[in-house]
Formats: sequence, C-alpha cells, structure tokens
Amino acid sequence: MSGTFISFEGPDGAGKTSAMKAIVAKLQPTIGQKLTVTREPGGNPISESIRSIILDRKNTAMDYRTEALLYAAARRQHLAETILPALANNQIVLCDRYVDSSVAYQGAGREIGEAAVAEMNQFATDGLLPALTIYFDVPATVGLKRIKAHRNPAKVDRLDVEQTAFHDRVRAAYLRLQTAEPDRIKLIDATQSPDQVIKEALALIQSILPKTI
Amino acid sequence: MSGTFISFEGPDGAGKTSAMKAIVAKLQPTIGQKLTVTREPGGNPISESIRSIILDRKNTAMDYRTEALLYAAARRQHLAETILPALANNQIVLCDRYVDSSVAYQGAGREIGEAAVAEMNQFATDGLLPALTIYFDVPATVGLKRIKAHRNPAKVDRLDVEQTAFHDRVRAAYLRLQTAEPDRIKLIDATQSPDQVIKEALALIQSILPKTI
Repeated sequence: MSGTFISFEGPDGAGKTSAMKAIVAKLQPTIGQKLTVTREPGGNPISESIRSIILDRKNTAMDYRTEALLYAAARRQHLAETILPALANNQIVLCDRYVDSSVAYQGAGREIGEAAVAEMNQFATDGLLPALTIYFDVPATVGLKRIKAHRNPAKVDRLDVEQTAFHDRVRAAYLRLQTAEPDRIKLIDATQSPDQVIKEALALIQSILPKTI
Repeated sequence: MSGTFISFEGPDGAGKTSAMKAIVAKLQPTIGQKLTVTREPGGNPISESIRSIILDRKNTAMDYRTEALLYAAARRQHLAETILPALANNQIVLCDRYVDSSVAYQGAGREIGEAAVAEMNQFATDGLLPALTIYFDVPATVGLKRIKAHRNPAKVDRLDVEQTAFHDRVRAAYLRLQTAEPDRIKLIDATQSPDQVIKEALALIQSILPKTI
C-alpha cells in the first residue's frame, strides 16, 4: 500500500463536495501522483444496487441495523473495487465520506451506538482508516439551511425526512470522534468563507503528502 | 420475549428442510403455541432485494466481506420483521439457517475468519441466539451427492460453483461451533434414515419446550 488515503467528513450542507472540487483543481498541478476523487457508492454495480435499497422510499420497514449493515456492505465493495486498487497504484485518494459517517449518522443519529457501529465497520474495512480525515464542522441549523437553499425539492429522499435533533446528535458524534482521534481527524470551521475553508484543507493535505523537491 | 427460538443448521443436502416439514406436522397437534416456520430471507421485500444482489451471477466482483455483510443485513431485517414479532407473540419459531451458517460459510468456507464473522453478526442480531440449534451433520461428499441428485440443474446459482474443499471447511467449522457451545448446539447424525433423524430432532425440541399438562 503506497498511496495516500484522505477522507472528507461532515454534515450535508457543510460544503465538502464543492471544496473537494476546488482542492483537486489546485492540488493536481503541484503533485506527481495521480488523484482519485470518489464517494460511496462509487459507481460499481454492487454498491449502487445496495444504495438503491437503502434510499428506496418504499422501504419504510427498514430496521436501523439493517441500514447500517447495508452502508457497510456498500463501503466494503467500494473499498475493494476503487480505493484499494488506487492506493496499490500509488495514487492519492480523496473520498467524500467513509467510516466516520456511519458512526455519526447510524451510531449517534439513529442511536444504535457509536462503538457498536464502529466495531461492525471494522469488519467492513478490515481496519483500513484514512491517513487524514478532514471534518467540515458546521452547526446543524446552518447545514440544513444550506441544503434547503440548494436542493431540488423533487430529489428529497427518505434520509432527508429527519429532524434537527438528529443532526445535532450527528455533529456531537463527529466532535467526539475528532477529540478521540486528533492525529487522524482535523477540524475545519466550515462556517468560514469557501476560500478560507479550501486554503485550510489544502494546507492539511500538503502537510501529509510526501515532499517533492 | 416469551416464545422459543430454534434454528436448524447444516450443509445443503443434509435434509434440514424436509425434516422441518415432518417435525412441524408431528409437533403442531401436541402443543398449545403457534409454530412459525421460516428461513432467511423470509419473504420481506428488503431481505429479498438483498438476497437477489447476493445470488446474482453477474456479480462476480463481489468481495467476500461484502457478501457476509449482505447476509447479515438480510438476517437483521428477517429478525426484525418475522422472528422478533413471533417470539413477542409467544410463538415457537423454527428457522432454517441463522448466524452459525454465516460463521461456517463466510467465516470458514470463504476464509474470512470465524471470529470476525461471528462478531459482525453479533451486531446484526443484537446478541439474540436461539435457545436450541439442531445441527444436521453429514460429510461434505454425502451432502453434495444428495444435492446433485435432487436439484434442477437450471437452478444452479453462483454459490453452487464451489469445491469440496470449501464444504469440508464448512463442516469443520460447524463441528467447532458445536464443541464450543454444546448446550445450545446439538448434533444429529444426518446420514441416518430420515425417520430416525426426525425422531431425534423432535426429542431435542420437546426437551426445551415448556411442559404442558
């Protein structure tokens, strides 16, 4: 394993996805390695099929542990088909959401338990964690307001039908994860201007990349 | 939880399913409780959708850990929709395959590791184990021969394309499980006549049911 694995975490509306695009545009010309930018389910047919079961609004009977196991299954397949081959090929992998999302959303948001979800995901990842996780921190109310402003209302799916209390639990879990693993997980205040957020994220990424002369 | 949960385990071709039918016919008239006979995925739409991903022969890229997580997800949903409600309703539940199948098939057969698969399934079941597990023991060669004699060749799916070595690992794992949990898991020599197998299984079941006067 010779590449570098970096994940981006935070609530919807924190600006992760736009920031990742800007980061890639600035980072790619300065490095010799290839960049792979990905997010679960990652385009492979198996993970996409799993994702469609999770998001199907007809599946109102879905148990929360079933949901967590399906996310982990889609994650495993994405890891096997996309992330591991890219890392083996010495690439830098930027992944939008990974294990910490499940700990925050299923463990804390759904109240299954953060430790139980983390442990089950350990099976899915066989213990592989990113070298760096950038956590985009915004209060739940800010994230939700941004989503409502930008999203096509026709695209609202089952997961969006959630309350602010849920998102408060998610944020609290992210903050606990960051406190527990400060070396891996770095917090950025994502209420700052996009330019400032991108600048801080780039500095974090450059700090862990091998130096080129 | 006031019902009684009983699982049936063993390789394909051990005669579990036929034996379960005969057991129900003999047991139902003698007891006051309702009997629920089920098997994963159990007919609920979510588990059936998950099962179809597992068995799709096009999914040759499926990672073994993905497969184990999908079985666990289908199991969880079947537990939530079928087994737990029946137990809460004071029924006797006879289930064809449960956690031990994953430990034997994915843990040992696929060589992911029996402990890892057992631990991950602990998440899926939230620790719920049967009061009694009847393990139908046959050598791999006997089970495989019976399957070939009975099955419609057009129905062969991805999972059938396996070798005898795989089935030898599965049986060895079942025997280790039985040795580790002798109070829960009872072995029946399933190379005996069907009548004898059914007689022994009935005696085991009656030994754990509440006595009616």
